[in-house]
Formats: sequence, structure tokens, C-alpha cells
Amino acid sequence: MRPYVIVNVAVSADGKLSTRERRQVKISGKEDFDRVDEIKAGCDAIMVGIGTVLADDPSLTIKSADRIAERVRNGKPEHPVRIVVDSQARTPPDAKILHKGPGLRIIAVSLAAPEENISALKNHAEIIQAGEVTVDLPVLLTKLAEKGIKRLMVEGGGTLIWGMLSAGLVDELTMFVGNIIIGGKDAPTLADGTGYVLESDFPVLERMDVIPMEEGVLIHWKVRK
Amino acid sequence: MRPYVIVNVAVSADGKLSTRERRQVKISGKEDFDRVDEIKAGCDAIMVGIGTVLADDPSLTIKSADRIAERVRNGKPEHPVRIVVDSQARTPPDAKILHKGPGLRIIAVSLAAPEENISALKNHAEIIQAGEVTVDLPVLLTKLAEKGIKRLMVEGGGTLIWGMLSAGLVDELTMFVGNIIIGGKDAPTLADGTGYVLESDFPVLERMDVIPMEEGVLIHWKVRK
Repeated sequence: MRPYVIVNVAVSADGKLSTRERRQVKISGKEDFDRVDEIKAGCDAIMVGIGTVLADDPSLTIKSADRIAERVRNGKPEHPVRIVVDSQARTPPDAKILHKGPGLRIIAVSLAAPEENISALKNHAEIIQAGEVTVDLPVLLTKLAEKGIKRLMVEGGGTLIWGMLSAGLVDELTMFVGNIIIGGKDAPTLADGTGYVLESDFPVLERMDVIPMEEGVLIHWKVRK
Repeated sequence: MRPYVIVNVAVSADGKLSTRERRQVKISGKEDFDRVDEIKAGCDAIMVGIGTVLADDPSLTIKSADRIAERVRNGKPEHPVRIVVDSQARTPPDAKILHKGPGLRIIAVSLAAPEENISALKNHAEIIQAGEVTVDLPVLLTKLAEKGIKRLMVEGGGTLIWGMLSAGLVDELTMFVGNIIIGGKDAPTLADGTGYVLESDFPVLERMDVIPMEEGVLIHWKVRK
């Protein structure tokens, strides 16, 4: 058993998540942010990779007061559980994700994470160990399901999304394709990592909705099993 | 004066042109191939980078006999002029692009291209020299315009497209987004090269058409000046 997993990203027209310096840039506008806030509010947890925490320092909180109020009315915590996939426990103890807004945080680390790093994070987050050197994502997702997390949103970056896709752990992929070109062979994309070389290994998607939005296009895919 | 430039590519849902080994894979189907053949038939020349020639060995001919016949009826050559951007003149003398079908070929090289490479290609193609170490694309496009090339299609790869976009030489970008994930931080994307780091430098696009096609999505952008 594992949670239902939704990957949500905004990419440039040339498929980049950010510049080669990993600096986040504005790809979409208010309408898309609001759409993403709605998806977040409907999830039990939101997951990012350590690269995203180090580059963007996101808080991953719900922004709409109405949506927070509705979650509370429905007996849910204000914000979804916030999860960092962080093999070496490098999340800075002052990261926004650990301090902004109430609610549970989980740092998923490997058995190779330095003990002093883990100690520094224990006061702020629950630590889950899974995997020898890198985080074993299928094991992690099973543990998350055991904690009652049924619906999980993955926000990036490209290495985590690749890990999730290549392990067959993604159900839906929603991408906003923006009207800019970032360029750069070293700029992060939606699915980095090693990549596939054989057609038979490629995850295959099913097109659900295609919606012109703002100055870009929202494409909603389901992952075919 | 330069030709009107149309970039046409097929990318995976994660923005890749091919695998990390640069092996071309099937991203779109017959309907898209036919659409591309139609665009080709309407152009005076088709351009690719040397990486694409070495990886895919394309012929870049028009495939439809009807379209070829129509070109001939209109006083045009059967196939558009085929152009390789190839700083070091590394195009193999037996490359398909030099042998399949009648018509003019142009190899655009830099002043640094070895003389023996140029000699080996001279029997098969016209050689245009532009640029010291790499091909100076604005100079090349001016020379192509002087030869009567008014409408130019660029098929890839990511380095050439980046060069054209970053030099402000692209008018339209048509991308077919396919329903597969290729993955890989080293897999080529639509715009590789160094990439931009500042928002103010990003080429900005204007969304024209968004058309669900086959199992993917065709997005047609214009480049805003």
C-alpha cells in the first residue's frame, strides 16, 4: 500500500524547472498558483527533494485562508504534512519548511545520514530512515501510508520526480508549460537522474486535460500502469 | 535581412529530444510526421546541427510524393535546401543528407574547420564559412537570405536551437509534446547550450495554438520580439 501520488510542476517551454544555477524563476502566474494551492489543500502531504529546499527554501504551506479553514472544519491539520527527501539530512535547521505554520514535518533520510545532522533536525521534524545510501522511495511511501497519508503531492525537483517516476510511484502528472525559454544543458528538468535508454522502460502517460491557461498551457497526464 | 525561421521539434513530456545516448526515439506518430512533412514542403531550406547528423543520420527529404510534385509544379526544387551547421566540418561524406534525393546541400563551417574535412565535403555540398571557431548564425542567415532562402525550418538539435533562440533568430516554435518520460539530466532538450540566468534575457513566447494530437499535445508558439 502506498499513497496516491500527484506530481505538479511548472516548466519553461523548453522543459526547465529553473535556471542552471537552480534559481527558481516565475514561470506561471496567480491563476496557476491558486490552482496549485487547491491541489495542495486536497492532499495529506507535500513532498520535495533536498535540492529544492536548498535552492528555494519553500514553506509549502497552504496560502488560502478559506482552504485552511475548510481543512480544519473537516478535522484535518491546517497544512498537509511537509516531507523532505534528504538522504544525508542536509536540511538546514532554520529552513522555512520547518518553521512556517503549524503541523507535522517529516525528513526522510538514508542510513548513511550523519548522526549530528539528524540530531539537529529531530526537534523540528520526525525522522524516517529508509534505504542504505539514498532514500528508498517505495519503502518510504509504505511508511507514509501507514501514517495515514493517502494522497501525496510531489513538487520537485527533477531528481526526486525522476526517482518517483522510475520507481513506478506516480499516478498523475500535472505540468504548466510557460511561455519562456530558459535554456541550458545543465538546467534542471522535470525528470533528471540517469534517464532511460530503452523505449520499453519509458513511463507512458495518458493525456487527460489540455487547458490553455494564462500565457501557457496546463497539461494533465495520468501515468499508465 | 534573414529568412523567416520556424523551429519544429518533438519532445517527451519531460522535455527531452532523445535519450542521454542521443538515440532518437519515437515520440510522435504518423499524423505528426505528416504535419512536419507539410511544414518542410513549405520551406526553402531545412537546417540541423552536426550532432543531429551524427546521431540520427537524417535525409531531411520531403516524404510525400504529392508534395514533391506540387513543389516542382511551382518551380521549386523537389526538396528544400538541406543545411548542416557544422563548425568543424565533421559531417561524414557518406551521410544520408548528402546523398538521398536531388538538390542543394550546404555545410556551414567555421574558419577553424580543418581543410581536409572541407575538401572531403566539397563534392557533395556547398561550403559556407562564417565565424571564427563556431558558426556565426546571424552571418550565416544573412548569407542564406542572399541565396534566396526566405523560409527556413530548424529541426534540432538542442544546441543549434539554443544558438538560434539566443541570437534572436527564431520566429516560430512548434513543439509536439509526447506521452512518454525519457528522463536523464544529460539527455538533450529543446534548448541546451549555456542557458540564461536572468529573467530579462529569457526569450518570451506567445501562445498561438494548442492542439491535442495523437496521444500528445501540439503547442505552437510565436517568439515575441
